[in-house]
Amino acid sequence: MTQNIYDDPDFHAAYLRLPRSVEGLEGAPEWPSLRAMLPPVPGARVLDVGCGLGWFSRWARQAGAASVLGVDVSARMLAGARAATADPAITYAQADLEQPDLPVAAFDLAYSSLALHYIAGLDGLLAALARSLVAGGMLVASVEHPIWTAPAAPGWLTDAAGQPAWGVTCYLDEGPRAVDWLGARVVKQHRTMSGWLAALAQAGFNLTRLEEWAPSPAQLAAHPEWVNAGQVPNFLLFAARRG
Amino acid sequence: MTQNIYDDPDFHAAYLRLPRSVEGLEGAPEWPSLRAMLPPVPGARVLDVGCGLGWFSRWARQAGAASVLGVDVSARMLAGARAATADPAITYAQADLEQPDLPVAAFDLAYSSLALHYIAGLDGLLAALARSLVAGGMLVASVEHPIWTAPAAPGWLTDAAGQPAWGVTCYLDEGPRAVDWLGARVVKQHRTMSGWLAALAQAGFNLTRLEEWAPSPAQLAAHPEWVNAGQVPNFLLFAARRG
Repeated sequence: MTQNIYDDPDFHAAYLRLPRSVEGLEGAPEWPSLRAMLPPVPGARVLDVGCGLGWFSRWARQAGAASVLGVDVSARMLAGARAATADPAITYAQADLEQPDLPVAAFDLAYSSLALHYIAGLDGLLAALARSLVAGGMLVASVEHPIWTAPAAPGWLTDAAGQPAWGVTCYLDEGPRAVDWLGARVVKQHRTMSGWLAALAQAGFNLTRLEEWAPSPAQLAAHPEWVNAGQVPNFLLFAARRG
Repeated sequence: MTQNIYDDPDFHAAYLRLPRSVEGLEGAPEWPSLRAMLPPVPGARVLDVGCGLGWFSRWARQAGAASVLGVDVSARMLAGARAATADPAITYAQADLEQPDLPVAAFDLAYSSLALHYIAGLDGLLAALARSLVAGGMLVASVEHPIWTAPAAPGWLTDAAGQPAWGVTCYLDEGPRAVDWLGARVVKQHRTMSGWLAALAQAGFNLTRLEEWAPSPAQLAAHPEWVNAGQVPNFLLFAARRG
């Protein structure tokens, strides 16, 4: 069963105070880049994997999607998502994301924002997504970047020139990484870049776009507290077509 | 014109003392991994890009290649390569690797070991390689890994747990990096992972294999001086098919 930290009451309350929970997609600085990778949404049947509070599900309908199925492990998040819409073309369902029970060849687009790096059984999920997409359907997703997830003791160090440097250790050791976030111990799954690409290929996806995302200079100027983040990519964004 | 540090007499002399210069392919710890990516060599027409002392060119002929053209920027390296063989099916030529003059659709395999990360005009080289390969021909290459080439002041730091950590800075700033190596100031070109993949795709290559290489535990045990190197990948190895 997928980790379900989002149903921890204290973690959930803290998560609800994040800009991306309060402001939705506009509070997520990587959203414009991820949006640019989407295939045409009007008329599409959309699967929102790790839908959380449903911000993308609602956006997709506003953008003309025919229907949206949002799946998530967290009952609390799904309750929030359901409370935020009365749209009959949006359906939400709780699912074990390691082996979700999804309709076959039923979607044109599978979207996932910052969820896949929590999934230990990624191969099972990607196989399920491939089955649930029509031939030619697209998977568009963001995950934490391998450089970001690699370290056993993540943090900024100081290099020989006195500049902040992100300390990379055990990059090639794929597997769980426990980090403190929002007052909780959160377990993420580190995968190498080649590990992500091999998993996509094995599930029958052909990579069409890959972006290593960091805040833009304008975003950094607006958020001085992110100053180091421009040095290394925080997120890996990708688009892949089901063969 | 491509940087030609290999024709600097002092650098060249130091390079000739490296294990991979003395022992050839067997002195290059990444060779078994790169060899495993090669398509069948018997009968193949082979282009060796940045052939250096010609160790791979000679290996390819021993493995049954029909012919080999080795190209390099360095007259000194080519002289060494020519002196090491009398095989009439091996030809060596000096070339500006940013815009090499190559025969069209004349090769089944283009191979390059640790040369492409010196090339500022990579797009021009990849376009030339694509033209020089037959449809379905393969490019198999090793380059320094983006995590390795990124830092402005490369070096091992110490993380919060007291462990050696590779300090990554300015990863997203693609371009030249000057490092001290073998007593010389060597300029390499840093590219992000997505930058390498996009350059291949733009030149018409379809990626078929990607490996982030670091020494194996056995290799690390045999080379205690590499002890930190197992933490992060030193090299990026890839195979790509000309579409």
